[in-house]
Amino acid sequence: MTDLMNRQILLRRRPQGLLQPGDTEAVTAPAPEIADGEALVRNTYLGIDAAVRTWLNDQRGYLPPVQLGEVIRAAGVGEVIASRCDAYAVGDVVTTLSGFQELVVVRDDLYTTVIPGVVDQLAMLSVYGATGATAYFGMTDIGKPRGGETVVVSAAAGATGSLAGQIAKLHGARVVGIAGGPKKCEVVVNEFGFDSCIDYQAGDVPGQLKEHCPQRIDVYFDNVGGPILDAVMGRLAPKARIALCGVISSYLTGEHPGPANYVNLLAKSALMQGFNTLDQWGRFEEAFASLKRWESEGKLVHREHIFDGVESSVDALNGLFTGANIGKTVVRISDPTPV
Amino acid sequence: MTDLMNRQILLRRRPQGLLQPGDTEAVTAPAPEIADGEALVRNTYLGIDAAVRTWLNDQRGYLPPVQLGEVIRAAGVGEVIASRCDAYAVGDVVTTLSGFQELVVVRDDLYTTVIPGVVDQLAMLSVYGATGATAYFGMTDIGKPRGGETVVVSAAAGATGSLAGQIAKLHGARVVGIAGGPKKCEVVVNEFGFDSCIDYQAGDVPGQLKEHCPQRIDVYFDNVGGPILDAVMGRLAPKARIALCGVISSYLTGEHPGPANYVNLLAKSALMQGFNTLDQWGRFEEAFASLKRWESEGKLVHREHIFDGVESSVDALNGLFTGANIGKTVVRISDPTPV
Repeated sequence: MTDLMNRQILLRRRPQGLLQPGDTEAVTAPAPEIADGEALVRNTYLGIDAAVRTWLNDQRGYLPPVQLGEVIRAAGVGEVIASRCDAYAVGDVVTTLSGFQELVVVRDDLYTTVIPGVVDQLAMLSVYGATGATAYFGMTDIGKPRGGETVVVSAAAGATGSLAGQIAKLHGARVVGIAGGPKKCEVVVNEFGFDSCIDYQAGDVPGQLKEHCPQRIDVYFDNVGGPILDAVMGRLAPKARIALCGVISSYLTGEHPGPANYVNLLAKSALMQGFNTLDQWGRFEEAFASLKRWESEGKLVHREHIFDGVESSVDALNGLFTGANIGKTVVRISDPTPV
Repeated sequence: MTDLMNRQILLRRRPQGLLQPGDTEAVTAPAPEIADGEALVRNTYLGIDAAVRTWLNDQRGYLPPVQLGEVIRAAGVGEVIASRCDAYAVGDVVTTLSGFQELVVVRDDLYTTVIPGVVDQLAMLSVYGATGATAYFGMTDIGKPRGGETVVVSAAAGATGSLAGQIAKLHGARVVGIAGGPKKCEVVVNEFGFDSCIDYQAGDVPGQLKEHCPQRIDVYFDNVGGPILDAVMGRLAPKARIALCGVISSYLTGEHPGPANYVNLLAKSALMQGFNTLDQWGRFEEAFASLKRWESEGKLVHREHIFDGVESSVDALNGLFTGANIGKTVVRISDPTPV
């Protein structure tokens, strides 16, 4: 192990908005030694989602902020290459908090899970990871779409939104996406099978919602917050349900303008609920069983946007906010062992 | 019947803010004739709630706006004094959309309900009317307080808030009221039995919430919206529930600033739900059975703020917004027949 090196991306300065040169530093460290109770994982893929950006701000969420000088935190998948821990054997495929680096030391804790059987390591980060579970629980537990209802999904070309909309379709709903730009809207309709898609970059979202949702909106799966949430709340149907999944419009700035149309929750006896997929940990297998069945029946597609090499992690993260990415944003750190 | 006259308050001009002289006109009309299928009711008490004010704006809610020249709409209780309708007999006590007037013609429809047995007509408008049902369903269906949880209720000295807080106490919660001024806060604690009360007129509501709710807020029963809702949302506990009952802070102006802290619904996996008590019509008896049991056991008190005479209706309504009233605001139109 002694010749093995670990390329890492450290946080050097808290970013304002998008990450700039100088906010991070790429360093090469020797491979870490493992102690009793630890194992060493060679990362294969990192999953990049908006939560990564929130961890760079100096405010506590459900995990503490990344400190200056630390490796940037991100979930990923990898293979155990050395172990002094009963929980993990060499060759095991695990999901863990890999970080923006090539190697990570893990312990027997909640964050590291062995994936049994032969797995598609890439899909573990999208449809068969927290992303797929988030789409599943948000849509089925909170959205609860029924046949003929109108469901709107924002960030519809993204990892979670694209799955959430397809799940609503599988429940018989009419599904309208919201995405940025004609290219993404085309993918949302033609690849992910939404009934239509609103391009918010074309402006007048309230007017477009009126046109695309003549029967108003029964379910909204919200990944963005901000003015789009407000516009949707202005067009709720009676007893509408809003699943609050993310607030990407404010992650860069930390500012969250409140939706003035929240009063429609009262006028329409509607519900808005936030959720954290990790609370449903014990039910992940339920989610994956449904997702696998739908995928095997050809009713669910997933797509990954793959960046290459640990040093591309920063671009991958920025791409979430510039709208450059379609599907799940993934960084390939190393190739999985062929199975 | 021919000598009977009907004193009425008509809407003459859409009010801006509080009702001003000239917005309404008191007129005296002959008693209306009733046709087949109708009955004539002598109003005894009107219940004045904030919804009455919303009906004076030119915007459709769950009922259409009152038109210029029409009697101002309000729910009330009264006695049938003439009938050409199978549904109502002379002497029946009914709740109906009485309006700001002495007499009202009713038909056999959803808005008019005969109250069987001997009844306290005053209590029919507070604890055993929509007010009591609203407190009951909002708190038990959405708030769902558990023993030891912290429950906050705004407009705690008001008709609905005072009952909602007591219901939460009966579920074993610690209950903190929010009211305007030391006098109301004293009533909230000493008469309605809340654990403590925040005087929002003393300022720094976020700071007071921190002091009164050291364990954060599990349930919020919101009657006011606006900055107080935002402050409460800044101090939610994980899995908190917000029952949206009213937005009195904006009824005068029609403006509803959005609560920027709505993002805490996401951070705390919390829920905010609006409700309309009339949706629970079929379950009113369930609510009243519980409320009666609690009242008979001495665990639930209700209080009415009584104005006298139909011409006092406008002052009664304005008093809801100036903070002058404690408990259910009621206008005595005539004395109930002694039982």
